[in-house]
Amino acid sequence: MDNKVEPRTLSGTMELLPKEQIKFNNMLDKIKNVYEKFGFLPLDTPIIELSEVLLAKAGGETEKQIYRFNKGDNDLCLRFDLTVPLAKYVSKNQNELAFPFRRYQIGKVYRGERPQKGRYREFYQCDIDIIGDDNLSVLNDAEMPSIIYNIFSELDFGDFTICINNRKILNGLFEELGLKDMQVDVMRIIDKIDKIGIENVKEEFRKINVPESIIQKIEEFLNISGSNSEKIEKLGNLKIENEIFKIGFEELKQVIEAAYMFGVPEKNINIDLKIARGLDYYTGTVYETILNDYKSLGSVCSGGRYDNLAEFYSNKKFPGVGISIGLTRLFYQLNEMNLIKEKDESMAQVLVTTVDNNFKEAVNVATKLRTKNIKTEIYLNDKKLKQKMKYADKLEIPYVLLVGGEELEKGEYVLKNMKTGEQLSVKKDSIIDSLRLQLDKI
Amino acid sequence: MDNKVEPRTLSGTMELLPKEQIKFNNMLDKIKNVYEKFGFLPLDTPIIELSEVLLAKAGGETEKQIYRFNKGDNDLCLRFDLTVPLAKYVSKNQNELAFPFRRYQIGKVYRGERPQKGRYREFYQCDIDIIGDDNLSVLNDAEMPSIIYNIFSELDFGDFTICINNRKILNGLFEELGLKDMQVDVMRIIDKIDKIGIENVKEEFRKINVPESIIQKIEEFLNISGSNSEKIEKLGNLKIENEIFKIGFEELKQVIEAAYMFGVPEKNINIDLKIARGLDYYTGTVYETILNDYKSLGSVCSGGRYDNLAEFYSNKKFPGVGISIGLTRLFYQLNEMNLIKEKDESMAQVLVTTVDNNFKEAVNVATKLRTKNIKTEIYLNDKKLKQKMKYADKLEIPYVLLVGGEELEKGEYVLKNMKTGEQLSVKKDSIIDSLRLQLDKI
Repeated sequence: MDNKVEPRTLSGTMELLPKEQIKFNNMLDKIKNVYEKFGFLPLDTPIIELSEVLLAKAGGETEKQIYRFNKGDNDLCLRFDLTVPLAKYVSKNQNELAFPFRRYQIGKVYRGERPQKGRYREFYQCDIDIIGDDNLSVLNDAEMPSIIYNIFSELDFGDFTICINNRKILNGLFEELGLKDMQVDVMRIIDKIDKIGIENVKEEFRKINVPESIIQKIEEFLNISGSNSEKIEKLGNLKIENEIFKIGFEELKQVIEAAYMFGVPEKNINIDLKIARGLDYYTGTVYETILNDYKSLGSVCSGGRYDNLAEFYSNKKFPGVGISIGLTRLFYQLNEMNLIKEKDESMAQVLVTTVDNNFKEAVNVATKLRTKNIKTEIYLNDKKLKQKMKYADKLEIPYVLLVGGEELEKGEYVLKNMKTGEQLSVKKDSIIDSLRLQLDKI
Repeated sequence: MDNKVEPRTLSGTMELLPKEQIKFNNMLDKIKNVYEKFGFLPLDTPIIELSEVLLAKAGGETEKQIYRFNKGDNDLCLRFDLTVPLAKYVSKNQNELAFPFRRYQIGKVYRGERPQKGRYREFYQCDIDIIGDDNLSVLNDAEMPSIIYNIFSELDFGDFTICINNRKILNGLFEELGLKDMQVDVMRIIDKIDKIGIENVKEEFRKINVPESIIQKIEEFLNISGSNSEKIEKLGNLKIENEIFKIGFEELKQVIEAAYMFGVPEKNINIDLKIARGLDYYTGTVYETILNDYKSLGSVCSGGRYDNLAEFYSNKKFPGVGISIGLTRLFYQLNEMNLIKEKDESMAQVLVTTVDNNFKEAVNVATKLRTKNIKTEIYLNDKKLKQKMKYADKLEIPYVLLVGGEELEKGEYVLKNMKTGEQLSVKKDSIIDSLRLQLDKI
């Protein structure tokens, strides 16, 4: 190619072919519909923000990943999550909003990571949060598992488990055991338990000079197992007197009990006392979601409770609870495993075309079908019938309506089922009903 | 505020309060639904692209407005329209796509303009295009007015006019009159006619030394008026023998005739021979859309036919036709004029709450309503009833379901219509039907 630029996309961004895009949009719509069914309000904040505002809190790893640039007098950056823009929005509009403020936001965020398979620089997050303006009942924490349950039931990727913990339990335990100053190391070691086993975990604690009596307490804690109610019972039996621990324990009990009330089956909830989800943000309930058949994906929907959403913008405290789904990555992984099945990967439900390139009648009937909200494409180019059918095939449009020829003279169209090859003569006047009947069968 | 950052948004970006956001989303959904009804496939390209790729064509004014920056080794920019990404996508995926490729894309684009009232740096465009891989019948041009007609009928902002012209008519006329080399000046002067009148237009032509005989010809052309069929007749009577003019004339006739076939009423179409829509991109049919009661807004949906979508990426010719709606600006203007009326500006259809802060039954019924796809919010905080009602009022949620007290003991809930204040006792078991009945009345 002379003087041509090679058409290509930045690595780490997702750009799909139409059939994949339809699948992606269907996933996104399912999530959105559940968020709306639970009465969350939509929010759409700008992707570009003033750096001073968006980076009020950021630092370290996050800041290195930011897309930041100047334009005119403005120091700008691309949002790297949907939480900081929410904090900004809530403090900016606190006098206009009704609290608790329940919002969902689905949009792209940006992180300048070194791209790897399945890691994205531009990706969709699907977030909901409930923000209080003073107190926020822990019952709100119990609504989140219900939302997660609805979403992953809709998405239909098999059994899944919502793992729940409360950060106060860990914090209280560490305080009780005198490990507060070394909790980063302690959590790092605990996180490895599934990989290296309890004995090696104990060994690692010894290496950082944790006394044997304390290690024994941690072991007791980590050994808690059984059903959710058994875990709660055993947790109570530890007889830990620390105040923070006791509050966390009560909150966890309430959240689990109320989550059942919210219709989440017991088998979909698992108290997992090891979950922390980072150390500096969440302050109470934390969630992770595991697809039981695809555990290697890690958590596909996570979140938790925080005390103070907007501390960098406002003196007022806004406690909140929320969850987030990283949709781009999730879609990529499930699609790679060929798990996203659609009953229908075409947009149009029917392709109207002529057998003789006399378009008037075809345009008429296409317009009529659209009036009845049937998704209709009309093939308007002067091609051979074979090519028109090939086109419908490639787009996987389920029905082709052939207009013209002898049939039209008899006042009929021919309706072809592209999967079975079956052809049906249909009276002109009853085309809407006939087509609806066929579409209902899919 | 000490050490707090003032929460604010970059000027020229739109960030709406929830009720406005609901209205915005409703507009967007209506446009999207029409695009899908016409069988267009969804597309979502990245917002960040490699500058070398995205700026293959750009120059001058456009390039100055680009948000461009480096990250690592990459020279990147934010997309400034949805057409260049489409050109890239089509040439990149030409072997995978089925042609004609009909796609819609709704997304944000970026222009670093000096912000003014109603001008945006980040704004939504809603585009559709039909791209052929060799020829593309002019009938496709006639489908566009039908799509515009469906959209603005749905949006319901009063009468509107789709103005149609064909660039070949202007190009052919200028060629015939020997004005080809000065067509930029000629178009600039013609564009002023509505403001300054025909006599002043003629005076301006004299100033740039256009001969009197040619000015007379232009006047004849500009004086063409009447119904669409009268305009076509008068255009034919000009007896212009230029080949390009004749092709444009035939195309225009076909497009107008076929647009009627596509169900667009004659009164919604107006041949406007002055429309050019820029000089270097469109090559045939061009469209503008005017809201009859709000002409000062200018064109709210424009587009046209082009011969060669992807010339900077591919040697292959991709002819296409498309239209675009600048949704952010349109929403801003109509909303400022208070023209966007919604029957319902809340997300939740019902707020479930307790009269006595005993939440179990409230959670049960909320879960039941959600199972039936009724958009349901539950008020979970321990507040006085008055505050709960105030909350529902502020969010304009049409119904509140009160759970608890004596009614619950009798097996009933109280359903309150928040607009009329009317209260209704409803049997627990028939709550779904009772609520549906009420919601249908709104």
